[in-house]
This record gives sequence, C-alpha cells and structure tokens, in this order.
Amino acid sequence: MAKRGVKLDYAYCLGKVIGAQGIADKELVDLSAKVAQVHQRLGEQRQAGDLGFMDLPDQPAQLLETILEEAARLSSIADDLVVLGIGGSALGATAVDMALKGALRYAQPAGPGGMRLFVADNSDPRFFGSLLDRVDLERTAFAVISKSGSTAETMSQFLVVKELLERRLGKEETLRRLVFITDPAKGNLRLIAKEEPVPILSVPPNVGGRYSVLSPVGLLPLACAGHDIQALLAGAGAMAEACASPELEKNPAYMLAALNYGFYQRGRNVLVMMPYATDLFGLAQWFAQLWAESLGKAQSLDGSTVNLGQTPVAAVGATDQHSQLQLYMEGPQDKLIMFLTLGNYGRDLSIPDLYPRIDALSYLGGRSLAELVQAEARATAAALASQGRPSYSLRLPAIGPEVLGEVIYLLELATVMTGGLLNINPLDQPGVELSKKLSYGLMGRKGFEAEAKQMRSLDAGDQYLI
Amino acid sequence: MAKRGVKLDYAYCLGKVIGAQGIADKELVDLSAKVAQVHQRLGEQRQAGDLGFMDLPDQPAQLLETILEEAARLSSIADDLVVLGIGGSALGATAVDMALKGALRYAQPAGPGGMRLFVADNSDPRFFGSLLDRVDLERTAFAVISKSGSTAETMSQFLVVKELLERRLGKEETLRRLVFITDPAKGNLRLIAKEEPVPILSVPPNVGGRYSVLSPVGLLPLACAGHDIQALLAGAGAMAEACASPELEKNPAYMLAALNYGFYQRGRNVLVMMPYATDLFGLAQWFAQLWAESLGKAQSLDGSTVNLGQTPVAAVGATDQHSQLQLYMEGPQDKLIMFLTLGNYGRDLSIPDLYPRIDALSYLGGRSLAELVQAEARATAAALASQGRPSYSLRLPAIGPEVLGEVIYLLELATVMTGGLLNINPLDQPGVELSKKLSYGLMGRKGFEAEAKQMRSLDAGDQYLI
Repeated sequence: MAKRGVKLDYAYCLGKVIGAQGIADKELVDLSAKVAQVHQRLGEQRQAGDLGFMDLPDQPAQLLETILEEAARLSSIADDLVVLGIGGSALGATAVDMALKGALRYAQPAGPGGMRLFVADNSDPRFFGSLLDRVDLERTAFAVISKSGSTAETMSQFLVVKELLERRLGKEETLRRLVFITDPAKGNLRLIAKEEPVPILSVPPNVGGRYSVLSPVGLLPLACAGHDIQALLAGAGAMAEACASPELEKNPAYMLAALNYGFYQRGRNVLVMMPYATDLFGLAQWFAQLWAESLGKAQSLDGSTVNLGQTPVAAVGATDQHSQLQLYMEGPQDKLIMFLTLGNYGRDLSIPDLYPRIDALSYLGGRSLAELVQAEARATAAALASQGRPSYSLRLPAIGPEVLGEVIYLLELATVMTGGLLNINPLDQPGVELSKKLSYGLMGRKGFEAEAKQMRSLDAGDQYLI
Repeated sequence: MAKRGVKLDYAYCLGKVIGAQGIADKELVDLSAKVAQVHQRLGEQRQAGDLGFMDLPDQPAQLLETILEEAARLSSIADDLVVLGIGGSALGATAVDMALKGALRYAQPAGPGGMRLFVADNSDPRFFGSLLDRVDLERTAFAVISKSGSTAETMSQFLVVKELLERRLGKEETLRRLVFITDPAKGNLRLIAKEEPVPILSVPPNVGGRYSVLSPVGLLPLACAGHDIQALLAGAGAMAEACASPELEKNPAYMLAALNYGFYQRGRNVLVMMPYATDLFGLAQWFAQLWAESLGKAQSLDGSTVNLGQTPVAAVGATDQHSQLQLYMEGPQDKLIMFLTLGNYGRDLSIPDLYPRIDALSYLGGRSLAELVQAEARATAAALASQGRPSYSLRLPAIGPEVLGEVIYLLELATVMTGGLLNINPLDQPGVELSKKLSYGLMGRKGFEAEAKQMRSLDAGDQYLI
C-alpha cells in the first residue's frame, strides 16, 4: 500500500487561531460525537452495498487487466479518444488528464505521450462540431459513457458520430472504434450492443456518476491517455486506509467534512476550492459537481423539507487573487475557502535580477516562480485569517497519479460524511428530472405530452424583453 | 452605429410570473426611482472623467490605427502572442478569443487564422513552463500588460522571458518581440522602455483593469489574434446607445442591475452566469472578476462597514445541468441565475434516426444538436421558474464580435449601476493589498519587514495537520 502524501492543514478554521469566526474547541468536541455517529451509519450503508465508491481502490486485478487491454486495443487503432459523456461521465477523466498533461495539453507541439483525450461534455453544436473538426475520424475512437443509455446529450452525439463513421468507414470499422461504458445489465447501450458487437465495460450499479472516476468510467479514458491508473488507485487506497478511523482528529476526510458542516451551520453557504496550480482547475470543477449534486437537497432523510446545500466555486491561485480575492477579503462572511497547495511544482523557473535598481523588481531576482506562487498561497490564507476569514489547505506534495487518487478519495468520503451530518442523501439527484422532462416535452418525445403542455404554460414568451 | 442584437428577458424574475419569490410590480417602481437617482450620479461621475470605460466605444481612429499597425508588425514576425498579464489584464482577451476561436482553439489541426493567443495568467511554473515549451521562441511575441509595472506575477514572467530571449536571440531581436501596455506616464514598464526601446500602448488612467477589455489591454491581443476589433467596439457602441435611457424598463443594463440588486437584498448572495455554449465559459470568468471585484466591498460610500457583495459563479449549459442543477433546483433560495442563450450556434449537426425502435433515442432522430441545446436552455429556466426560482436570460442572436461588444458593455454598465444601488465604490479593490504585502514580506522585498514579521505571527505552522 502506498504511503499517504496529502495532508489537511486546518489551523485557519480554529477559533483559537482566527478568533470568533473560527470553530471553538467545544464545537469540535460536539462535531466529533456527530461524526462518530455518522461513521457508524456509513459502515452499515457500506455493508449493505450502498457505498460502492469505497470499494473502488481494491478492484479485481482481472477488471484492471480488461481495462488496460481495451485501452491498448484502442491505442493501437487511434490517436485520439473522444469521450461522449456529460457530468459524472466526463468531469473525473478531465480532472485527472488536465492535472497530469496540463491545461495546455491540446496545444502543439510538446504534448506528452498517450492518446489525446477529448471530453465532449456539451450538446452545443458549435463546441462539438469544432471537436469533430479537430480529430481525424479514421484515427479516433469514441467511448460512449451513460449508465442508462438515455442521456440526451450523449446519445445524440453517439447517433451523430455513428452515422458519420459508418458513412466514412463502413459498419465494421465503425464498431471497432467504439466502446460503451454503461450499466452491467440494462439500458439502451446494452440493447444496441446485443445486435452490434461493441466492447462494453460496466459501471458498478452502486457507484453513481459523480463517484465513478475510479471505476471504468474514468479509468478507461485515463488508461487510453497513457496515465498510470494503478498508481491512481493505489493513492486512493492509501487515503482510504488513512480515513478508516472514526476519530475526527485522526481522519482528514472527516475533519474536512466536519469543518464544512460546522461553517455551513454558521451561514457560510459558499465553499471555494482554490488550487494554486492552473492544471488543477479541472479537479476543482470535478469537485464542484460532487459537492453541489450530493449536498444540494430539498428533503432530509426523515422527509422534511430542508432546501440546503453549500454552493461550490472553482477558483485558481494565484490567478484569482486578481479576480475573486477582493470579494473574499471584504465581502460578506458567507464563505469558506479550501486551498490546495503544492510542495513541489515538478519544474521551476529562476527569476533573473535584470533591473537591480528598480525596487519593485529587484526583490524577485534570484528567487523562482515556485517560490513566488508558494509565498502567495501562504500570504493569501494568512491575510484572510487576519480578518477572521476561515480557510483550510490540502497540502499536496506534488501532482501525480497517486496524489490525485488520494485527493479524489478524500473528497468523495468527505462529501458522503457531510451528507450524513446534514442528514440528507448524498447519493441521489431527484431535482434534475423536471428539466429533463420539460426538454423531452419540447423535443416531442412520446409519453411527455403533459410536459409539453406544462412547458407551454411556463413559457412567458417575449412579454418582458428589453 | 450597429443595431443592437442582444436582448434581456426578465420574465422569470417577476412575481406575477414565478410567484412570491419574484419581484413585485411595486418593488419595480421603487427600484426604478433608485435607478434614476444613481443614473444622475453616474452622469456626474462620467462628466468628472471617472468612468473611462464608457468612452471606449468611441476611441480616436488614430489609436485604433496604432493598435492595428502594432498587431500587423507583431503578426509579421511571430505566429504566437503570449500575454503576460493577470486578472483584468488577462480575462477580457481570453473571453473574446475563446468565444470566437472556440474552447478547443489550441487543438490542431483546423484552427482559424490570426496568431495563436496564449494568456499566461498564473505565476505557477508548471503552467508557465509548459506554455513556454509549446511556443517557438523565435516566432513568438510577448505583450507585457501591467498598469503599475509592478504586478509580481507578470513582472516575474517578464524577467524570465526577457533573459530567455536575450540568451537565444540577442538584445535587439528580443526587444522587437516585446510590447508593453501600461500607464501613460508612470510605472516600471515606462522606466524600462526609456532605456530599452520597446513599443508602448497606454491604458487610459481612468479605466481600471477589469473594465479595460475594450482598451488596448484587450484590443491589441485580440487584433493580433485576427479578431475584428472595430466590430467589437461597434457592438459596444450600439449597446451604449441602447443603455443611455434613465428609464428602468427601457434600459437593459439598468434592469439587469436592478434585478440583481433587488434579489441580493432578498438574501440571494450567489449569482450564477450560465451561457449555453462551451465557448462562452471565458466570458463567464471575465464577468466573475468584474462582479466580484467591483461589488465585494467592506465599506459603503459614507464610510460605514457593510461587507457586502454577491458571489459570482461561472457555469456552462447544458454541461452543468449534470453538475450544478440539482443544487439550483433543490438547494437554498440563495441564488439568481443569469442564462445566456444563442439564437444561432453558427453551425449545426443533424441527429439521425438510427434506432427507430428505441423510444429513448427515436425522438431525437430528425432533430439537431442546436434544437436540443436550445430546448434544454428553455426547459431549465422553466423548471426553475416552476419552483419559484428566479432567472433572467440574455438572448444573444449568435456569437460574433459585435454581440460580444454588446454583452461586455452591458455587463460593465450594469456592474457600475449595481455598485451605485449598493452605495459602494465599484471601481477600487482595496482588499487585495494585504495579501500582496504579506507576499512581499515572505519574498524579502525591502520596506516590507513589518509584513514579514506579521506573516511569521500569522503562520500556524504544522500544528493542526492531519
């Protein structure tokens, strides 16, 4: 088992460090008792098979081999992999690929090895059309990822691509370029694959989309892109081990959850995730889904109406010091900030002392860009703390697959623990159905005539247009 | 003067459409009176020369010619332009370039014409190093953008690049590849250019960074990238004309401001901007700075402590229907959503009816991706409205430079009007100073010894680390 590298520094959450806005020792004691209770419930849920994501670090070697073989097959016939998927089928692969290959991974030259990974997470034809322009269809494979096989955006893209490929390459060559990732037993992609032989990988039924990055949903695209998925899982495993304790002060996932819960109860309805690395912006967007969709809920577990949930905001340091920091420093006391800092950036650039007579430049000479960005991260957290504004930091030793696996598992478990503290179900998403049904109504889908009518009654037309 | 194309649809903000959570007619009357008052104050401020951004649509032809000539010169010697700038010196150019060349603009092949535009808006060496890997230094120009010439991130990058270029190409060839955009009279870049002849363009002193995209700060990079900056300005001009009226119900910028202000007063401390186009995500990030930095303020104009400001969130439709919508539908009534919809996506893809016997797919056959995403936008706004959750839509006829100019001007004016309604100064950013100074302390800058000491006292070390 790999050694855990990621650490949680929560000093700037504490009353004894930042003053009255911080969490008092007594509150930590209360939180600790609550956490222990939820820990027990989570144990029961896991026993009952409801928390499938917790088992993903230890997937059967056989499954990993299948994934690696499929990735090798696709790599042998294609240079690019396009994921047709949205939400939980898209964000995890993007997060890890961006972290490891960089925010500028598509800019040539100088890209590292593996297939180029594109994630077609919008039905917007301007975006999807431009994506199709940029790949060579003969040398491109498509992973269609939808648990139900009825996701409108994904399935529309699949239909478009399938026709395009068949017209260009014929049926057999088309099927070779496809892989489905879907429910192990049911759904439209299973149905289609019965008549047209396309390789299929399964999403475990007890793993929801936003918790699925360490399942074939994320692992197949990431293996195609050349990433070390075994290291990713090993990192998740190391964090799982570190987060097995029911004791708040020994369990970073539970502490993170307790702090978020405690500050949310105090009216902090915004949670900013701000990694000090541009390449980790995708991770912040992945987390934004995890947090928003898991915890934004109308009903509590006892059926009462609660309408709660903290709004996640994805930011980047140092960039957003020049965009959002003014608000964080002076705006309402309605935010909690999660920083992600890097011990090592993997590379560095020295700053030369070219203008020794200009004060505002000469102090930079002899230092490095990593020193500068690390100083900025520390200074920003300290500046906030000096105003009684709470934050905590996940300290990452560096960016690599193990570390990403650790962070992913940590945040998934913290989310589920927070859901338990809030007494809501962090695994469902009932609120997205109405919008889907109204879309079906507008698109004339059979069986959704009532929604078409409802849509007409809701549409205000051009009455209030300036 | 171009005809205005962008319209504001605010039906789903109104009590008579969405119920008690909406704004009542009577409140609109009150808001209308407040807006008229602030309109008068803004007129005086403009007269006094404080609102420079309002004059940018009508810049002297001579200045535009200078910009176009400089862009032509850079294009003749380089294929790529790297902007060294952060915050307001970066976000505007990125927003417009991403909107017009696409989110996938760096992926080859099939990019449109003009120089590739990279924006180095982070001091993170992993990101900046990878950027430098991806350009050919001999064929790359660098625009250094900093009003003061002392922005630590930007100036560090400048020092790194200057040494790199000089070592590779010698001094003369290095200076040819540089352009400075800075204060017209003072600052370190002016100082440097006195001894080393680098072309300089000026930022008008009365235009702050986040309001500067239509000044040389945005226009030079955008002209280099091959965009029609005259069309951009013409669009801004058309919107300025449409927004000259003091009457709330005739002025889309004022209505947008009044709605945001009204809903903020009702406890909606989060404003989501959700364009239904991936390519407009950069615009949402540009807006996030404009809104956060302008309105997140500790003090009101009369000097009392207010600590106010709405937190902007950048989202994308339809993508975030599968990430954030659950929270928007079921979470707390603490949000207002600004949708951006497109009448025309500029291109479309037809969805073939390949599986007529599968209900969940056959309804899509014969429709197009644009029809689908447009239906989703309407359905999502309607679903929110059906739950008494307010939103408004900026309806864009299409994506193009005129339309972007319109949207930019509209949002800038709306921000300043909202600042007036909130009785704060939307043009300053005093809250970012402390973090900068603590950084200087950490970096050992002369004159910041007190901050170095303060930093040591604020640093909690490794005491609370799990």
